Amino acid sequence: MKYGFGIDLGGTTVKLAYFDENGTMLDKWEIPTVTANAGSQILPDIAASVKDYLAKNNIAPESILGLGIGVPGPVDGKGVVNKCINLGWGVFNIAETLSSLTGFPVKAGNDANVAALGEYWKGGGAGCENMVFVTLGTGVGGGIVIGGNLLHGTHGSGAEIGHMVLNPKETVACNCGKYGCVEQYCSATGIARLAKNHLTATEAASALRAVDNVTAKDVFDAAKNGDAVAQEILNQFYDYMGQFLGSLCSAVDPEVVVLGGGVSKAGQVLIDGVSAYFHKYVFHAASGARFALASLFNDAGAYGAFKLALDAFGA
Amino acid sequence: MKYGFGIDLGGTTVKLAYFDENGTMLDKWEIPTVTANAGSQILPDIAASVKDYLAKNNIAPESILGLGIGVPGPVDGKGVVNKCINLGWGVFNIAETLSSLTGFPVKAGNDANVAALGEYWKGGGAGCENMVFVTLGTGVGGGIVIGGNLLHGTHGSGAEIGHMVLNPKETVACNCGKYGCVEQYCSATGIARLAKNHLTATEAASALRAVDNVTAKDVFDAAKNGDAVAQEILNQFYDYMGQFLGSLCSAVDPEVVVLGGGVSKAGQVLIDGVSAYFHKYVFHAASGARFALASLFNDAGAYGAFKLALDAFGA
Repeated sequence: MKYGFGIDLGGTTVKLAYFDENGTMLDKWEIPTVTANAGSQILPDIAASVKDYLAKNNIAPESILGLGIGVPGPVDGKGVVNKCINLGWGVFNIAETLSSLTGFPVKAGNDANVAALGEYWKGGGAGCENMVFVTLGTGVGGGIVIGGNLLHGTHGSGAEIGHMVLNPKETVACNCGKYGCVEQYCSATGIARLAKNHLTATEAASALRAVDNVTAKDVFDAAKNGDAVAQEILNQFYDYMGQFLGSLCSAVDPEVVVLGGGVSKAGQVLIDGVSAYFHKYVFHAASGARFALASLFNDAGAYGAFKLALDAFGA
Repeated sequence: MKYGFGIDLGGTTVKLAYFDENGTMLDKWEIPTVTANAGSQILPDIAASVKDYLAKNNIAPESILGLGIGVPGPVDGKGVVNKCINLGWGVFNIAETLSSLTGFPVKAGNDANVAALGEYWKGGGAGCENMVFVTLGTGVGGGIVIGGNLLHGTHGSGAEIGHMVLNPKETVACNCGKYGCVEQYCSATGIARLAKNHLTATEAASALRAVDNVTAKDVFDAAKNGDAVAQEILNQFYDYMGQFLGSLCSAVDPEVVVLGGGVSKAGQVLIDGVSAYFHKYVFHAASGARFALASLFNDAGAYGAFKLALDAFGA
């Protein structure tokens, strides 16, 4: 039996996990992400933590097939990072660098893409060949798996689906500088914005009017309690999701769309709401895609990172 | 040296071509597509034409690596056709059927996807790994190649990019029954429609007012002659193309976008127009995609079909 590590590098913590080649997570722990000095300490810290773990547990280096790592920025198929603003990183080959620091082969990918691979392998997309993964959090990210392979993209920016454009007439700019991106309507922040706008546009009574700084969760909760205005806000959100995923699935024709991120905690009501509007927008031949909730949550990145290494260096 | 056939099955004619394994097209010819009796004669006719060609040219069956075929309808990765309305076909495995009729292994794909593979291999996308192919004809079709592999889609309908939704507020229905599809604005028919609407919306003088039933070509020709109204129509078209390809490339992050189909005869002016608006809509990290014109024209399908067979059955 061979073993390996899956590493999910975030802006504040690094999640590390130790796996056997069947994909069983045997252990996991975290270390802080030290972004001082242009993030120059991050990879040495990870290498030290891996070596320390092996030494403490008397694990022979020969039993390690390799490391996989997900990174918060664009990473191409060869492991070249193209600037991670959060970490202070420029352009370099993270796979080669971490490999020389640890002595193990390394495969790297973008964090959202790697999380998609995790959900494809052991989560909401398990058993399928083609999958679209969507994280609905502060922003909207995702990953696309085709025939079991992650779509990394030529410039390491595959599946930046939160920046597909839904509404070219939008007057408020997205964080990316463009106008009308998916992220502006379909993220938790986007739902809050839809709520604010809709509460201004209508005078109908709503429990949400008593809430300061309405959040996405407030809207879902109020709708669950029968608040008609909250449901109207959700319907706007579902309509944007339908256009977004209808267009994306007309292009990709996946078997499953997996929904993750904080907004997915709404559960089955989210699946039901999105599915209904999805069929308004998807091309008929691709309409067979089913929806599922992500199931690995914060571990998706570690699973996917190890899977990257397993696919590249496993038996 | 091994050889094979690339077959492009259309609604009125079947294009057949004979290739060597280096991808040199050695011969090509056509036979009519007989759609009578639910298209039951189509595959026997193709098999007879292939066998006849081998016999007439004294080619040993042992030298044939296989056949590839592009079909006007959804085809999944296993060769199962899911209804070809034009041909009268239902659901069956075309690869298995044609293989038993000819005695050669067969690989099948959707015609637009297969043409994309041809352009990827020997045309406008030659030398790249990730490509988006767009045909701007009566409708809008296309294909997506990732890491050299065609995206067939789970339901055989990968890359139905003409039915991504650009404008959910559209009041005229697309041929597919939805509203606001790419095809309604970016096809030759779509440009003619934009022209008609714009000529009604403005009273400005234009050479196009003297033309009955303005076509896409009329608009390009008039704009080339400095007609301001024609240029405004093209700018609307380029803006839709920018939103369409900006969104698609934010998801796929290709190296090259290849433009084909009748509208691509406009040439470099099309590339220049689309590129400018593309940068308004694409996510910055994916903005490095370059544009190229298709170069195989009517032979793209035969090249791509043979490439399917070569990838599956070649040495």
